Amino acid sequence: MKNQSLKEVLKLILSEIKDVLSKIDEKKTEAFIGKILKAKRRFLLGQGRSGLVARCFAMRLMQMGFPVYVVGETITPAIEEKDLLIVCSASGERHLVLEMASLAREKGAAICALTSREDSPLAKFSDLSIKIPVSLKGSSSQPLGSLFEQCLLLYLEGVVFVLMRRLDICEGEMRKRHANLE
Amino acid sequence: MKNQSLKEVLKLILSEIKDVLSKIDEKKTEAFIGKILKAKRRFLLGQGRSGLVARCFAMRLMQMGFPVYVVGETITPAIEEKDLLIVCSASGERHLVLEMASLAREKGAAICALTSREDSPLAKFSDLSIKIPVSLKGSSSQPLGSLFEQCLLLYLEGVVFVLMRRLDICEGEMRKRHANLE
Amino acid sequence: MKNQSLKEVLKLILSEIKDVLSKIDEKKTEAFIGKILKAKRRFLLGQGRSGLVARCFAMRLMQMGFPVYVVGETITPAIEEKDLLIVCSASGERHLVLEMASLAREKGAAICALTSREDSPLAKFSDLSIKIPVSLKGSSSQPLGSLFEQCLLLYLEGVVFVLMRRLDICEGEMRKRHANLE
Amino acid sequence: MKNQSLKEVLKLILSEIKDVLSKIDEKKTEAFIGKILKAKRRFLLGQGRSGLVARCFAMRLMQMGFPVYVVGETITPAIEEKDLLIVCSASGERHLVLEMASLAREKGAAICALTSREDSPLAKFSDLSIKIPVSLKGSSSQPLGSLFEQCLLLYLEGVVFVLMRRLDICEGEMRKRHANLE
Repeated sequence: MKNQSLKEVLKLILSEIKDVLSKIDEKKTEAFIGKILKAKRRFLLGQGRSGLVARCFAMRLMQMGFPVYVVGETITPAIEEKDLLIVCSASGERHLVLEMASLAREKGAAICALTSREDSPLAKFSDLSIKIPVSLKGSSSQPLGSLFEQCLLLYLEGVVFVLMRRLDICEGEMRKRHANLE
Repeated sequence: MKNQSLKEVLKLILSEIKDVLSKIDEKKTEAFIGKILKAKRRFLLGQGRSGLVARCFAMRLMQMGFPVYVVGETITPAIEEKDLLIVCSASGERHLVLEMASLAREKGAAICALTSREDSPLAKFSDLSIKIPVSLKGSSSQPLGSLFEQCLLLYLEGVVFVLMRRLDICEGEMRKRHANLE
Repeated sequence: MKNQSLKEVLKLILSEIKDVLSKIDEKKTEAFIGKILKAKRRFLLGQGRSGLVARCFAMRLMQMGFPVYVVGETITPAIEEKDLLIVCSASGERHLVLEMASLAREKGAAICALTSREDSPLAKFSDLSIKIPVSLKGSSSQPLGSLFEQCLLLYLEGVVFVLMRRLDICEGEMRKRHANLE
Repeated sequence: MKNQSLKEVLKLILSEIKDVLSKIDEKKTEAFIGKILKAKRRFLLGQGRSGLVARCFAMRLMQMGFPVYVVGETITPAIEEKDLLIVCSASGERHLVLEMASLAREKGAAICALTSREDSPLAKFSDLSIKIPVSLKGSSSQPLGSLFEQCLLLYLEGVVFVLMRRLDICEGEMRKRHANLE
């Protein structure tokens, strides 16, 4: 184990990911895409590495031309009715995340959760919850929420791909919106 | 000196600030306000503490209802013609800042610089440069760019105040747009 | 009022600030400095513009050589016993801020609050609370928490100044630690 | 194509990733791990989504107990001799990234590049360059740098895994350092 080569490790990671991704509910994804399309504005919320992955998705949504914000960034305005809050949280039970989701609901926004536990307070509380079925108790050989975060990224990349096809958005259009002061 | 009380120190800081603020060119401020009002979108750029102050200003612009972005944040799109880049830089000569200003200009955006040196490359390069007249060589008893950053914040607070009056924007309207997922 | 010049506005802002700063309790500042010096590590917490000001302070603490972190940034570790959490919050009653302060206390960290209200839940909860005596109800002619944030910045600049004198830290030493990849 | 299901899309993404990861040079990874272990402090640099992925890695390095910083965050100090700058850049030719790498080198830091092009200015300039062999010209069916960013994340997750094994760091130890004010 100690002497596993990187190649073997990457194979292991990929096989863990493949297993999780194959179990995500396709119908719920359709509902998710529907909510993204319907919302007036989209707000992404996540803590730690889930938050970083959420931002990767936010960037692509912006490049596709959707009004989108990241909770906690400078120019993020008040969430309102008809907005959609997309919450990324492995456990779905972090108090602060629940608190924010509850504030958003009070304002009339829809909530969509991406979480590993459908029985979590967050999932129950949301209008729609997509289960990224990673067991948080030890079935992965990777540390902490790594497998969840990897699957979350790739799942959302899939959603980007599907949105591009559906809306006939080409890469060139996205490149034109890509930040150019870097 | 070593035993100066906080009260004395704060008095000293305030008097340094007052001196600098009294020397800012009022006519240039009018031109700055004109550019803010006219721009399609506003992009704020700054490094380190100047960048943090720039974000304080960006937040108020958003709350007043102006489309505004912070360079480097997740959902910041490509800058284009008719946009305004507001660059905050004490020295006005940091290579990376100049590089970004030059990229923005290439795209056809207007550049407005807030800097301590009117003879800096940044100032020369900009459509408009507002001088925050802080000597960077030792006349302040505060460390590094502190006096510049303090004056920059208060100057921009003044600009916010003036914009609110001109456009008849009340505090309540700004509170409604204030981020509510905190 | 509508035609106030920027000069008049800046004068007004400065006089509001001066009034608030003159009323800050000097003895509590001594206690604050004591806590900063004694802590193993310092954690800065604030939302919105208060959070941006908190980061301005964190940057100077780092440049003076103190181990310091900003809550929410990438490499911020777990807070522990002997650490100090410095919370910047005008109202001192935001649920999320209280929640985090309470988590920090559970871990055994000391809490120091910078707030406008000594009777706020945050102030009562903290080991030390410094009152930045800004009335949040309308006595300032500036919008939202602006006056609080300005006074918070300048107060913390004063603390930096005092710390430099006490510890004989010169500007050159701080410049050497100043981020050089900008 | 327009009607591809999410399952098919995810399969496609995974097969693209698998193909790229299988081609990464194992010997260079050993050299990379050596540099990480040897450095006094590690600095992560990346723009846009590569930067978000870089931060995912930085978080794990912190949790493993390594001194690590993210370029552009508040408390990041000056880079110095014996430090390691890890640069994540698909093209390896962005002017601003090169500029920062060049500043780091001037200070005596080692540079390690993660890039898709071994003939890029960044790769040539670095002490070590790891090629993430993604063709930037159209062989992927995903938009922009997506495939690079996905492979970068998973590659770095593999490096985390290997480091944990080598240093006998268990998940519990990492959990203890995991940010607890979220």
